[in-house]
Amino acid sequence: MNKTQKVLAAFLVLIILFTGAVLSRIWLFKPQSAVQLVKLPAGEYNIEAWGKNYPLYYESYQKNLETAPSPTGYGGGINIQKSERQPELFVNFKGNPFSKDYTEDRGHQYAMHDLRESKRIGPAAKGACVTCKTPYLEQFYQEMGWGYASRPLNELMDRAKDHPINCANCHDPETMGLRVINPAFIEAMQRRGIDVSKASREEMRSYVCGQCHSEYYFEPGTFKVIFPWDKGLTPQEMYEYYSGKPNGFEYDFLQTDSKVPVLKAQHPDYEEWQNGVHGKFGVSCADCHMPYMRKNGQKYSSHWMTSPLKTLDESCSPCHTQGQELLFNQVKAYQDNTWQLQHMAGENVARAHEAIQKASQIPNVNQTELANARELLRRAQWYWDYMAASNSMGFHNPVQGLNTLGQSIDLSHQSINAANKAAGTNSL
Amino acid sequence: MNKTQKVLAAFLVLIILFTGAVLSRIWLFKPQSAVQLVKLPAGEYNIEAWGKNYPLYYESYQKNLETAPSPTGYGGGINIQKSERQPELFVNFKGNPFSKDYTEDRGHQYAMHDLRESKRIGPAAKGACVTCKTPYLEQFYQEMGWGYASRPLNELMDRAKDHPINCANCHDPETMGLRVINPAFIEAMQRRGIDVSKASREEMRSYVCGQCHSEYYFEPGTFKVIFPWDKGLTPQEMYEYYSGKPNGFEYDFLQTDSKVPVLKAQHPDYEEWQNGVHGKFGVSCADCHMPYMRKNGQKYSSHWMTSPLKTLDESCSPCHTQGQELLFNQVKAYQDNTWQLQHMAGENVARAHEAIQKASQIPNVNQTELANARELLRRAQWYWDYMAASNSMGFHNPVQGLNTLGQSIDLSHQSINAANKAAGTNSL
Repeated sequence: MNKTQKVLAAFLVLIILFTGAVLSRIWLFKPQSAVQLVKLPAGEYNIEAWGKNYPLYYESYQKNLETAPSPTGYGGGINIQKSERQPELFVNFKGNPFSKDYTEDRGHQYAMHDLRESKRIGPAAKGACVTCKTPYLEQFYQEMGWGYASRPLNELMDRAKDHPINCANCHDPETMGLRVINPAFIEAMQRRGIDVSKASREEMRSYVCGQCHSEYYFEPGTFKVIFPWDKGLTPQEMYEYYSGKPNGFEYDFLQTDSKVPVLKAQHPDYEEWQNGVHGKFGVSCADCHMPYMRKNGQKYSSHWMTSPLKTLDESCSPCHTQGQELLFNQVKAYQDNTWQLQHMAGENVARAHEAIQKASQIPNVNQTELANARELLRRAQWYWDYMAASNSMGFHNPVQGLNTLGQSIDLSHQSINAANKAAGTNSL
Repeated sequence: MNKTQKVLAAFLVLIILFTGAVLSRIWLFKPQSAVQLVKLPAGEYNIEAWGKNYPLYYESYQKNLETAPSPTGYGGGINIQKSERQPELFVNFKGNPFSKDYTEDRGHQYAMHDLRESKRIGPAAKGACVTCKTPYLEQFYQEMGWGYASRPLNELMDRAKDHPINCANCHDPETMGLRVINPAFIEAMQRRGIDVSKASREEMRSYVCGQCHSEYYFEPGTFKVIFPWDKGLTPQEMYEYYSGKPNGFEYDFLQTDSKVPVLKAQHPDYEEWQNGVHGKFGVSCADCHMPYMRKNGQKYSSHWMTSPLKTLDESCSPCHTQGQELLFNQVKAYQDNTWQLQHMAGENVARAHEAIQKASQIPNVNQTELANARELLRRAQWYWDYMAASNSMGFHNPVQGLNTLGQSIDLSHQSINAANKAAGTNSL
């Protein structure tokens, strides 16, 4: 070989080596952050079948089994009775099973177990109660439409017993794409002009949570689950909706002493978030509660749906760069302020129930004023319970929350005043 | 020249040209963002003398003369009577000049004029009232120490008349460095263990505002201005401080009808901000209210101290990247929620004054219960007024603010209830 030939040969060797390295990189070492899609059959509700194909997701989901308090002391995955901190619940829910058994929620895996164990559930309970407890909801609805809601709960629980909420509630087993399976959510969104099937991925990252972490009621007779969103998602708008007796629904229970027709709020987390600063600014539920993590170089979304304060670096710090302690203290301040007003509002609701009871026992009580007192208290209790029943202790929207609690306090006092008037007490 | 020499010569020419360009840049065109320091004599209180040396700062300061409403409709630089939107002020301040004249604040330049025109100021008014109205405060305090506070106000106003708040209130004329001249602020910080003279520049960017945008009271007899910060800066902590009758101070006025010894709050803006998220996260007053601007390539800090919503791009967007409309709506939501509860709290305070008045006119009224009603209302009014007297309609700390207003509402109702008990009304 002459000199030129030697140089060319050396170049050729280099090109061959480089090409080989690139190809081996592509063939032998797949990009570590990509997750290999494994199709599962439609109707696969067994978490183990999903878990063996998606071990990192499964592993993080299993952390929902942990029963630890939240870092700020509010909420958390321990099923203690809420009445321990809020004895006013015994009065406010008197006449309703919530006065007997009302625990903090635990992780998704406990959904079926805690439903079965709940003292709120009797032998007459209906299938509607299983709606948000299992991916079998898909099958039930496919088989029976809304008919499942009026079947005996025990029958459906028996079919779904080993399968509390899991992957299939939010993922299509064939594509792994996000999906919602709760028809109540889909219908409520439809009535608001939103076609869930056309949602963006970022919207779906909130819809999958919102399909269950929302306020609902049962249609009288059919037990169909309905979200009260037709007029909007604020506590005020939902109260206006309920005041119209939608689908013949009037109230959840009559409080035993006061005979107030009470609306029992159910974890309006999606509603609270949606009007809060994170919701308004397009930060999804998953952005905070299911942050991106890395293990062995593989990126995945955490499926440990818990307080973001437990994963503060991954959940909060991508946007808020102020450091752990400052962020934690700020969240704690929001929750402390909310808790103080929530407890105060709950106690005032209890006092108003007692005042109305006393007034109602007086002969010749003014029935018009008494009805006024009951209406004021019905609204006061709804405003209080919207906050008391939600899971973030105000964090999702502290400003709307504290305003709502302040209004509740005023309304309870107005109710007591009206009860006094009804009783003919010559108040100042 | 041979070829090599020609190349070298060309290089030499290029180097000379480049060096010349660099040097001319340094000598002829000074960096445009640097401001040339012009020393002014100590005691220079004439804004024109400052303005001709610092035209961009002067020009922006002159914008404080504008009298326009704030973008959200709360506050702003128009001196309308607050009672137009809040008729409850006539009751809540009955017995105090604030019931006669209580306008929204205008820009700093109007400070002396609006003080002189105020119907709250009579011929007996003391020099203490001039404290935050003019840079002459420095001279008065140098001459008389706290003695200036008990001099006739007219005497001091006559000396300072052409010089309302201006550059010298916050800048050392010789160094242009930031300074505070209000001895009340310096002493209050000292009692809290903070040496203002050792403050960082970023701290000074809040201290210069905080030296006047703060709650204060006059020491009985001396009229010395005192900030009630010894126990902390929250409404609760300041109330506890006042409850100890500090320096013999008990109250600002007795409400005519109820005889409640009322504490009148004075624009606790610094206090509200300090416990809010911006204060906690180290964002100074000037960061938002005096953002950096650019004109003809020169960078300067805007001295138009107004709603940051008027300079949203410069004030908010450096940290909050969500876009103008979302940011504006969020601020508006905070203020709407606060206004609703503030108005509600103020009306309840007025009702409680009336209830106590009625109870006090009843023969054999229970004096213990009546005293209890007055104490409850004194606290309720302070909590309400802490928010009503501040300038941000809750924005500086909506969470603490709404909690405080919620407590005020509860306390007013408790006061009404106690008044009923005092009157022997057999309430439920």
